[in-house]
Amino acid sequence: MAVLRPGRKTLLSPCTTKGSTAQVSYGAKVRWHRESPSPALPGDHPTLRVATGGPVRGSVGSTPKGLPLMRVLARDLSAHVGTEVTVAGWLHRRRQLKSVSFAILRDRTGLVQVVLTGPDADQLADLTEETVLQVTGIATANRQAPDGVEITAPVLTTLSESARPAPFDLYRPNVPAGLSVVLDHAGVALRHPMLRAPFEISAAAVRGFRAHLDGEGFTEIHTPKIVGTVTESGANVFALDYFGRPAYLAQSPQFYKQTMVGVFERVYEVGPVFRAEPHDTARHLAQYTSLDVEVGFITDHHDVMAILTRTLAGTLDTIAHEVPDALDRLRIALPEVPEKIPEIDFVAAQKLLAAHTDEDPRGEPDLAPAHERWLSGWAQREHGSRFLYVTGYPTIKRPFYTHPDPNNPERTRSFDLLFDGLELVTGGQRLHRHSDYLSALSKRGEDPRQYMWYLGTFAHGMPPHGGFAIGLERLTGRITGADNIRSVTLFPRDLHRLTP
Amino acid sequence: MAVLRPGRKTLLSPCTTKGSTAQVSYGAKVRWHRESPSPALPGDHPTLRVATGGPVRGSVGSTPKGLPLMRVLARDLSAHVGTEVTVAGWLHRRRQLKSVSFAILRDRTGLVQVVLTGPDADQLADLTEETVLQVTGIATANRQAPDGVEITAPVLTTLSESARPAPFDLYRPNVPAGLSVVLDHAGVALRHPMLRAPFEISAAAVRGFRAHLDGEGFTEIHTPKIVGTVTESGANVFALDYFGRPAYLAQSPQFYKQTMVGVFERVYEVGPVFRAEPHDTARHLAQYTSLDVEVGFITDHHDVMAILTRTLAGTLDTIAHEVPDALDRLRIALPEVPEKIPEIDFVAAQKLLAAHTDEDPRGEPDLAPAHERWLSGWAQREHGSRFLYVTGYPTIKRPFYTHPDPNNPERTRSFDLLFDGLELVTGGQRLHRHSDYLSALSKRGEDPRQYMWYLGTFAHGMPPHGGFAIGLERLTGRITGADNIRSVTLFPRDLHRLTP
Repeated sequence: MAVLRPGRKTLLSPCTTKGSTAQVSYGAKVRWHRESPSPALPGDHPTLRVATGGPVRGSVGSTPKGLPLMRVLARDLSAHVGTEVTVAGWLHRRRQLKSVSFAILRDRTGLVQVVLTGPDADQLADLTEETVLQVTGIATANRQAPDGVEITAPVLTTLSESARPAPFDLYRPNVPAGLSVVLDHAGVALRHPMLRAPFEISAAAVRGFRAHLDGEGFTEIHTPKIVGTVTESGANVFALDYFGRPAYLAQSPQFYKQTMVGVFERVYEVGPVFRAEPHDTARHLAQYTSLDVEVGFITDHHDVMAILTRTLAGTLDTIAHEVPDALDRLRIALPEVPEKIPEIDFVAAQKLLAAHTDEDPRGEPDLAPAHERWLSGWAQREHGSRFLYVTGYPTIKRPFYTHPDPNNPERTRSFDLLFDGLELVTGGQRLHRHSDYLSALSKRGEDPRQYMWYLGTFAHGMPPHGGFAIGLERLTGRITGADNIRSVTLFPRDLHRLTP
Repeated sequence: MAVLRPGRKTLLSPCTTKGSTAQVSYGAKVRWHRESPSPALPGDHPTLRVATGGPVRGSVGSTPKGLPLMRVLARDLSAHVGTEVTVAGWLHRRRQLKSVSFAILRDRTGLVQVVLTGPDADQLADLTEETVLQVTGIATANRQAPDGVEITAPVLTTLSESARPAPFDLYRPNVPAGLSVVLDHAGVALRHPMLRAPFEISAAAVRGFRAHLDGEGFTEIHTPKIVGTVTESGANVFALDYFGRPAYLAQSPQFYKQTMVGVFERVYEVGPVFRAEPHDTARHLAQYTSLDVEVGFITDHHDVMAILTRTLAGTLDTIAHEVPDALDRLRIALPEVPEKIPEIDFVAAQKLLAAHTDEDPRGEPDLAPAHERWLSGWAQREHGSRFLYVTGYPTIKRPFYTHPDPNNPERTRSFDLLFDGLELVTGGQRLHRHSDYLSALSKRGEDPRQYMWYLGTFAHGMPPHGGFAIGLERLTGRITGADNIRSVTLFPRDLHRLTP
């Protein structure tokens, strides 16, 4: 994204897309959507009915007679050529030339060019960018206008003033501001078509994730974010005063999603998790959105990986089909998810690194980021895949509930999914027998009383199960190639940032 | 639900449904699903392929040769009559008679009857309820068996032991335990078909809510749950140590969803909100799931009400179509959402109460619960509707961002939606002009510096907009007729409860 790559020049304007027609001769480039399948928007094709519960008026003001006007979206304007229409949105840009003036109006589906000639142009005189306008005029064919249509003979009505200039020009093709300016003024900055694109992708990703899992018989759950005991990693939790008692913000729904396998067999949750990360880096957040999955009646972690592979394919497919112009705006080529994502065993990966790089990581309990990058490059070269599973991580580096490899208790039935050199997903099979939990905790010197209710789950018969978690911001960040995870997080929380 | 209505007798067993066939002569009633359209479950019709990324094996164990077995779900068993099948699930109930024994197996789609005769019956001897089993046998037609099929000549394999008896018998048609036992042992208690039903309804409700809004062009967002300042109500917030600074858990995504109207026009969020409610009642929770909606370019609150009406209809429709047997199990008749939900003005409602009841609430700033119940009854009698909009609440009782009635600044463009006598949704139009916010705060004697970033949103041009919020647990509670909101909340948080 432009804001993150000040050194990278792009000719892309938010108003041009692969699918768009020729440049407009007189300057204003006025399209960012492209014709693509999209759901019907009944609210945007309102009738004049005013009955509550009937088709919504979706109006933007009233005529003098009190009848609501029909609002046409930028995307649909070309279907109305030759008729009087009303559009509404933000004044994206004004251009006042000698003989003609243009108002570019922005709504959620794109931009509309409004042409003002003669005395009509006076209406623009006092308006500033980001004023909310309603424009009624004639949808007029103009082969040189994008989408072949513009609005002529317009009457502009101000719905809401813009009291203060935006921190930077929202109409510039690239974002002329650094990340901190964007984040400090997120509410207005994200109106820039390049900056809002990651959040369109993010919303489509979650929709695709859920739709795929719904189709595989999963049930969505919502679990507590306030918990009574510090579990798992112990460190990095936010402490809370809970009616006079200590409590903590949940770092993960791990224990709850496992428990719910006993009820629904297959569950997922999309929700916030909290980490009191003292690190001020481009990839740490104090709150992120976790896409959590857990599934029962598996043979081992390979069943979990198969579900993850299909879920990822479904997620990317939804992005490709539902937000093609967000992808166009950012000039993103979505990765292919191979039907078989290549898999390499942890020890084999270390051997490969020892044989082909200057380093010899054999015997180390984890992979360094540089190792992950090299392995990803290897998967790309050898298997043509931007994705790679690394399996069989050492027990010592995985949480106590991780299922050991029955043939080698020092290794686990776990995996990481690397995407373009970075870990995108962590998962694996979990223990499912009550006695196995007790001995796993005892081996680590942990007190089972810390885990009372969680252990209770396994005392009542739990099937072999496993799961994974995807960080939504990390996924969006990888897809968009963001350099900083904050640029793909709505109102990020970190060591320093608590507003907006 | 049985646990909440100890006094209410029902003949409903979790094993019988409207759609089920005749009672089984020899006791075990073994079905709770009914044939209804449901998504394909590719993971449950696995092949023998073991390739990662290909169709999942979905297996439940391995044969001696290491080849995974095909698992058939209870729901699909009748399609396999005459063949050898493997089912897997929990031992729901054992019945050992003189000449024949039965094992009832429970999976996420229903119950399966397994018949053990002769020496086969010995396999049941040491098994306790909730043991996780894999059963391979012949799917055998038996007209007297529910769904016309049972498993004969079975081989039982234990996948996981049940180390401890459940706190109550999960196989009893009604729940022989009180709410606190259920909540303390939620992980196992919710396996009871009656107790899990509300969460199937809840998941379907959220799915329907999102699907409807997606279809109307809304974008899903995820906003911060940790905030820097106490806003709105002020009281009842949880305080937090945020890297040494004070912070709070968000009581609502109100400010964020309004801000995002400037970016996407139409947004929704499904997420947790937190209230440090010191009240220990049947309807207060410290965390609940809020379904939040905000929409721009409206004329007034009636546009918001129209969207709410359609969203509610879509939500209930999804429940009806996707989880009919959860409804059957609880014997629930879903309410009809009329195309036009009746609407009554606040003052008119008070006049009605004064005229037809012993009380005269005229001049009071709000409706008492008893008034809401009476009005709901009136809407049912006069309009045949279980839903009623009350509009035009006094300004003094609504938050500062509520849009006043232009004809009467002491009243607002706000509404409550009553359902069966209780407030289900609150919403309305919001202020959208920067100057209006400044004077609204000033009138209430509030310091605008408390709201710095939020006010900034309105300094940059915001369209007329409004929205609403539905509490998911309250919705599920109303639909299921729950007496206590905790019974429709996964692992509730309240004044006393912080585990599980």
